[in-house]
Amino acid sequence: MNERAEEPGAGPAAPTLESLRQRLVDFAAVRKWEPFHTPKNLAAALTVEAGELLEIFQWLTPEQAAAVMSDPQRAHRVRDEVADVLAYLVQFCTAVGVDPLEALAAKIERNEERFPVPGSAAYVKPEVRE
Amino acid sequence: MNERAEEPGAGPAAPTLESLRQRLVDFAAVRKWEPFHTPKNLAAALTVEAGELLEIFQWLTPEQAAAVMSDPQRAHRVRDEVADVLAYLVQFCTAVGVDPLEALAAKIERNEERFPVPGSAAYVKPEVRE
Amino acid sequence: MNERAEEPGAGPAAPTLESLRQRLVDFAAVRKWEPFHTPKNLAAALTVEAGELLEIFQWLTPEQAAAVMSDPQRAHRVRDEVADVLAYLVQFCTAVGVDPLEALAAKIERNEERFPVPGSAAYVKPEVRE
Amino acid sequence: MNERAEEPGAGPAAPTLESLRQRLVDFAAVRKWEPFHTPKNLAAALTVEAGELLEIFQWLTPEQAAAVMSDPQRAHRVRDEVADVLAYLVQFCTAVGVDPLEALAAKIERNEERFPVPGSAAYVKPEVRE
Repeated sequence: MNERAEEPGAGPAAPTLESLRQRLVDFAAVRKWEPFHTPKNLAAALTVEAGELLEIFQWLTPEQAAAVMSDPQRAHRVRDEVADVLAYLVQFCTAVGVDPLEALAAKIERNEERFPVPGSAAYVKPEVRE
Repeated sequence: MNERAEEPGAGPAAPTLESLRQRLVDFAAVRKWEPFHTPKNLAAALTVEAGELLEIFQWLTPEQAAAVMSDPQRAHRVRDEVADVLAYLVQFCTAVGVDPLEALAAKIERNEERFPVPGSAAYVKPEVRE
Repeated sequence: MNERAEEPGAGPAAPTLESLRQRLVDFAAVRKWEPFHTPKNLAAALTVEAGELLEIFQWLTPEQAAAVMSDPQRAHRVRDEVADVLAYLVQFCTAVGVDPLEALAAKIERNEERFPVPGSAAYVKPEVRE
Repeated sequence: MNERAEEPGAGPAAPTLESLRQRLVDFAAVRKWEPFHTPKNLAAALTVEAGELLEIFQWLTPEQAAAVMSDPQRAHRVRDEVADVLAYLVQFCTAVGVDPLEALAAKIERNEERFPVPGSAAYVKPEVRE
């Protein structure tokens, strides 16, 4: 993924989560916003931004929701709110010292045990599983 | 976990957002969960999980919140909810065809113009800025 | 509404919002929970509970969502989360000194001006209104 | 505010939750908004508005949060968001056929058993209670 030539003339390298994290840290530091970036405030801000993303969809029919990106204004809002959610998630993780990628990898592994694939040996039919 | 030694003695490779995204896609596909993964449902699920992360902090004092990761049970919940938020954000982005890293990079650039650094030529004192 | 006989032998009077508000105040006071009930904490708790209500619906089809109260377990959860949302809203209002009924009456009046009834003199077709 | 002389010819009586509920029903009916007011959409809208209320507080210190109503602009926003939360809660309850006051009364009763008053016979010290 994201294999971009680094030769002269090539565009900028694709951002990584870590490079963006560092930019967010610098952004807040130079504006002296760190005192506001407590885990509790950032968790609140994350929830607020997730709500703003949901707001775009709240009255849409399934068909309208599926076509959300074909409306340029809505598409811009979607990208904007996705960015805000990710920014606050990354800043929250920085504040508490959690690596979000490791956390997600570990969770996927737990979920693979918790929700066995239908047909696999570990699978128990939902109605039996209570 | 993540045991993917590429040579004897090497540690596991760190997951990338793209590798985790692909695992989430496969995870949902094999369980036939895709019909549920509409943009609207995923935006709702993202908001719900962000709320669950906030729940950990809602009654904590600033001091307790700052020390949240020194309590093993709370630390586990924090990592678990971070993973859920990131998982639904990534799945939402897949459903609407948005690259979250590109979206965040673009947003940081817009914010750098919107919130000039104090002391820079573009900076206008907040009270003047109204 | 809620006209219930007060004669001896009659059932309990229907609760009013004010009587419930007073019970919530007493409930928190006797447990010494007031220090936690800051406006910020209560706004966070309200959002968390609203998310828990939404969680019940997040993967339901429109048909399943419409029939939510015919499933006794889901019906209980719905009533439980409605109660939690209302409890925190009322406690928030108490903490900031707002009368929620007056606030809603004033908002309905503003909305009646903002969204004129189709066909009325004040109505402007949405596409014209930009 | 709340000047409500009770003599004949006096101003409007204080609103009740039921009278506001009826106004909201009429408001939506005359604008033909009912098809949008599904339980799922209203639960989403409720969460979004709760997030907007929380947004007012997200970066405030405890002192600033406690003084939120002494800033006229913030006070207006608080009342506005309280009204939106209550409006969507009431409309949600109408859509699913739940009486929010009865739901809250029942929940307070359950909570009185769940959280016995310190000093009462039923009280068990938290550390013992696990």
